[in-house]
Amino acid sequence: MSIETVVKSPTKTIVIGAGHPFVIIGERINPTGRKKLAAAMLEGDFSQVRADAMAQVAAGAQILDVNAGLGVANPHETEPQVITEAIRIVQEVVDVPICIDSSVLPALEAGLQAAWGKPIVNSVTGEEERLEAVLPLVAERGAVVVAVTTDERGISYDPMVRFEIARKIVERAEAYGIPREDVLIDPLAMPTGAVSGAGRTMLQLVRMVTDELGCNTTCGASNISFGLPNRRALNAHFVSMAIAVGMPSAITNPLIPEVMTAVRAADALMGYDENCAAWIKHQRQLQQAAAGADTAAAAPVGARPRRRMRGR
Amino acid sequence: MSIETVVKSPTKTIVIGAGHPFVIIGERINPTGRKKLAAAMLEGDFSQVRADAMAQVAAGAQILDVNAGLGVANPHETEPQVITEAIRIVQEVVDVPICIDSSVLPALEAGLQAAWGKPIVNSVTGEEERLEAVLPLVAERGAVVVAVTTDERGISYDPMVRFEIARKIVERAEAYGIPREDVLIDPLAMPTGAVSGAGRTMLQLVRMVTDELGCNTTCGASNISFGLPNRRALNAHFVSMAIAVGMPSAITNPLIPEVMTAVRAADALMGYDENCAAWIKHQRQLQQAAAGADTAAAAPVGARPRRRMRGR
Repeated sequence: MSIETVVKSPTKTIVIGAGHPFVIIGERINPTGRKKLAAAMLEGDFSQVRADAMAQVAAGAQILDVNAGLGVANPHETEPQVITEAIRIVQEVVDVPICIDSSVLPALEAGLQAAWGKPIVNSVTGEEERLEAVLPLVAERGAVVVAVTTDERGISYDPMVRFEIARKIVERAEAYGIPREDVLIDPLAMPTGAVSGAGRTMLQLVRMVTDELGCNTTCGASNISFGLPNRRALNAHFVSMAIAVGMPSAITNPLIPEVMTAVRAADALMGYDENCAAWIKHQRQLQQAAAGADTAAAAPVGARPRRRMRGR
Repeated sequence: MSIETVVKSPTKTIVIGAGHPFVIIGERINPTGRKKLAAAMLEGDFSQVRADAMAQVAAGAQILDVNAGLGVANPHETEPQVITEAIRIVQEVVDVPICIDSSVLPALEAGLQAAWGKPIVNSVTGEEERLEAVLPLVAERGAVVVAVTTDERGISYDPMVRFEIARKIVERAEAYGIPREDVLIDPLAMPTGAVSGAGRTMLQLVRMVTDELGCNTTCGASNISFGLPNRRALNAHFVSMAIAVGMPSAITNPLIPEVMTAVRAADALMGYDENCAAWIKHQRQLQQAAAGADTAAAAPVGARPRRRMRGR
């Protein structure tokens, strides 16, 4: 039987679980490593946040992660206000559920105030201090929580250590009244270029977490390819392979065509896409984008060809 | 523990099994649906066979399927001679093991005479007549055999029927002295556009055959996408997803870049590609091909751009 994690906006109910179409939690609204975005958000300019929200939902994101980590010295003072405003803006332009992404406790609290419906809290770890601070907030609101499998010792290269941290978080969550279907375990994808077989290990963890803990999984799907060439292709195949073993969601970028193709192909092959309708629609969109690119390429010298799929 | 199927040419030993790099059995030397090739082979012109052999091995095929089904009225008379000559030619230009592909018994016998090393016989089915005719040949030669999961009733849409046919073939093979690691089960990929979730069913069969019968699997990886747009992308993701659940080989076309990218990516992610060396080399080849295509595209008007990756 499939484990179902339900996330809601006022108008949409998203079910995360094997058997349902794969859920992309759009990762783009995140100023980490995007200096211009960070500066704009700090100045109260949320135009890029608005554009990122609309583009990701148009591309297929069913939930949007909102992060307001601005890299400032006083995040406890600035971040709650910025994340509140970012969530408000996102909810103004799209009607998908929100994934509140912060390591700053007051920002999570503010985000839970600002987000409508049943949001996701991203994240709790296995650290005692985090468990005690984050889980009561999640329980009180009846939210879903992402459980990152690290603890006081940091990230373990040993998958069994990560599995035991997952088990600990799930048990603690239950003690706070959070049902295990509302804990999304992130088994952590290690870079396969540095840790041989990191992909296989991660796939084994997805199965173990699903079968033995009764939890759904999610992950950031790009770390797996760190340091290797053609990361997009590796990430895309990692996503379809993870879907093959039962991972029902990922926090990733739907604006990358390779990733969307992987998700739509895997959904069609797994029977999660009725009549392959989403696959056929996705192909039509790709063809239209390519036709646009061809037209641009055929334009007179001096005209700048539009980059294929850029900004979609 | 990994099941190991060993196939040999005089100079090469290929191990098929989860834990080893995925093995592509190159499918191109097959006149079915290639009228020009059929006509040439019938006339004794094997230049295309030679070219297909070299191109597929250069692209990454570790075993070559050789089929000489010319669609003639008297295959029992013509096919043995033509397959013998085709195998001779292939062995002249490359040193990989041979997969003898025919439904004509005298052609299989002739192929087993012509092929060096420890070849694959493609194929036996669950039909009584085929079991009794093909298995003794395989046993006598100590070859590997592809077991296609059909029988007198044809192809069943019910995966459990296909699984029971697989079990029957494996048991009959053992009765003839063929160890189960020398039986490669083809669970048959049904078109996912017509049979919802055909991919998921196939992945479940791969696991069941591996875990419950102790056999390795192989398949023709293109039927899965029949009738759908962008078949290459679907086939490619189907291959990486099958690798994720333990399928160690496929009979497919290594000249399709999407398929090779899928295989190399999955091998890297599963830890079957030491230091990701094959992945890095594959990327370099793609870049070189793309650079060639760019140069052609930048040529003066009138010059015909070379199609990217064509013929590689």
